[in-house]
Amino acid sequence: MTHGGNIDSVFDGLMRGDRRSLAQSLSLIESTHRSDKDAAASLLERIAVWHSKRKAEGVQTPSRRIGITGAPGVGKSTLVEQFGLDLIGRGHRIAVLAVDPSSPKTGGSILGDKVRMPKLSVRDAAFIRPSPSKQSYSGTSDSTPDAILVCEAAGFDTVIVETVGVGQSATETANLVDLVILLVMPSSGDEVQGIKRGIMEVADVVAITKMDLDMAAASKTLAVYASALRLMMASRSEWKSPVISISATSSDGLTALHEVVDQFFSPQRRSTIESERNIQLRRCFDEMMKRSLTRFLTMDRELSNKLAQLYVQVSNGLVPPSAAVHRFLQRLNIIVKEKL
Amino acid sequence: MTHGGNIDSVFDGLMRGDRRSLAQSLSLIESTHRSDKDAAASLLERIAVWHSKRKAEGVQTPSRRIGITGAPGVGKSTLVEQFGLDLIGRGHRIAVLAVDPSSPKTGGSILGDKVRMPKLSVRDAAFIRPSPSKQSYSGTSDSTPDAILVCEAAGFDTVIVETVGVGQSATETANLVDLVILLVMPSSGDEVQGIKRGIMEVADVVAITKMDLDMAAASKTLAVYASALRLMMASRSEWKSPVISISATSSDGLTALHEVVDQFFSPQRRSTIESERNIQLRRCFDEMMKRSLTRFLTMDRELSNKLAQLYVQVSNGLVPPSAAVHRFLQRLNIIVKEKL
Repeated sequence: MTHGGNIDSVFDGLMRGDRRSLAQSLSLIESTHRSDKDAAASLLERIAVWHSKRKAEGVQTPSRRIGITGAPGVGKSTLVEQFGLDLIGRGHRIAVLAVDPSSPKTGGSILGDKVRMPKLSVRDAAFIRPSPSKQSYSGTSDSTPDAILVCEAAGFDTVIVETVGVGQSATETANLVDLVILLVMPSSGDEVQGIKRGIMEVADVVAITKMDLDMAAASKTLAVYASALRLMMASRSEWKSPVISISATSSDGLTALHEVVDQFFSPQRRSTIESERNIQLRRCFDEMMKRSLTRFLTMDRELSNKLAQLYVQVSNGLVPPSAAVHRFLQRLNIIVKEKL
Repeated sequence: MTHGGNIDSVFDGLMRGDRRSLAQSLSLIESTHRSDKDAAASLLERIAVWHSKRKAEGVQTPSRRIGITGAPGVGKSTLVEQFGLDLIGRGHRIAVLAVDPSSPKTGGSILGDKVRMPKLSVRDAAFIRPSPSKQSYSGTSDSTPDAILVCEAAGFDTVIVETVGVGQSATETANLVDLVILLVMPSSGDEVQGIKRGIMEVADVVAITKMDLDMAAASKTLAVYASALRLMMASRSEWKSPVISISATSSDGLTALHEVVDQFFSPQRRSTIESERNIQLRRCFDEMMKRSLTRFLTMDRELSNKLAQLYVQVSNGLVPPSAAVHRFLQRLNIIVKEKL
């Protein structure tokens, strides 16, 4: 897909909340074609300017970016659907950037969302998008921050990013959203373990799911998590991460979740959230810049061979990292001087 | 200091365990002079080759790299001294890469170490080095991995890296050493909190200090930490991080610490530790390479201005990170093409 000239019409469509323009925009920012990159940057710049103009004019409804993460089978989709329907009932418009863990290769089949969130997917005030195929295992990708901006431009005031809570994903998710909800399965006794360190670090809310199945186990799990969280200070702000128990199927406890979310996004916390977003932006920029420059420099065949060779030597302990970097920069200097 | 030609003699001195050569080597790798960088890389390459030759021949005594971290005043120096003296008594040679938190600017005064570790600093089997001045707040610096290699080459089989456990430092420390010991002050009741998330993540051993001052508080703190750690799986391996209580002044509980450390470094765990070190090497290489390339590219005045300008725009939300990176690369392409 090449969009060169019709960025204007795509942008106008987004402003009208046109779903076709939204889908086109998302395809554009996810595209790896060289020719699309420029169009994507132009579109995103227009959106960013629009966002900041609205903010300056004070007309911007503060958007909410919510991450929902947890192990496969914990009930993420069930919660997203019920939570999303509730929010629609309260006048919100919900975009869900979802990943279907059952098909990591294709990044979520199109049918998948209809099956996973049958009631939400048919609503006008909801938009569900499976992750692009170049996603990382967790379901987030380089284009997710841009996808969030695009959805907000199309009038969705709440963006839910659903990821599988394994490995790096929790931290990745925390860098994308304002609020991270960690879903945890109830378990009894000593089994209340199996959670990777790193996930607790970034959870702004821990929700024990399926409390209706085993109330005793849910209470026990809740107590253990509450005591662990009490031990640790919130990583991001003065926010004290609460632990609640929910049951999306019977919608018990969802009231508590809504209360916590509203509290998190209360007007007094707005400036904290804004400054946290600015930190995310800078972090994201640094990270993407470093990666892109590495790619850029190693487009030279000799340099990329040198890099690969050094990488092997470093891995084998034959060259310390600092010496390897020094040698690479020496070679780079010579090549640049030769060519200039 | 320029070492150009006498790398051979410095290396030979290191092999003999000569302290003057050791100090020279450390100054060399910490030097920011351009002319020293090449000599430092040569020295480190010789050391790395020597290390791997010894490993291949099976004569290498497995080294131990231990990080000791915790808040100021928790008793790090007291523990390092007593722990170090014990190890010397058991036939080890100890290098301490220490940071004096009281003088963050100079990176630890020379007098400081004599005051902080009076008994250890006079021993032949010990070497104490304050951090270089370009240290980060935590006390680690880019040259710390190299400093560890140099100390090991000089015959110190145990290297202790002492850092202040704040902010990023715990994670940084974990990337440098095999084993991280987190020291925690006893406190009673609800006060058992104040610990930054992130530190628990990387602690291989949690030691509650000063148990002789308030046994009740120490026991309470121990229980809370033990229950929090039980909840989380070890981040790095199958190792289950234990919580112990110690008192370095009365040397009570140090026996338990030695047992845990010996267990961690037991022969069965050697291959795990080795593969963890290889991961650290690759991670360190990636990180240093990315930073160096960014520095290299932004030596061009126009590009560095462009980067600074984009950084401000990104921070203000006027340009999304992905678009900013795209714009920078476009400019870079033009400059490179113009110059070629």
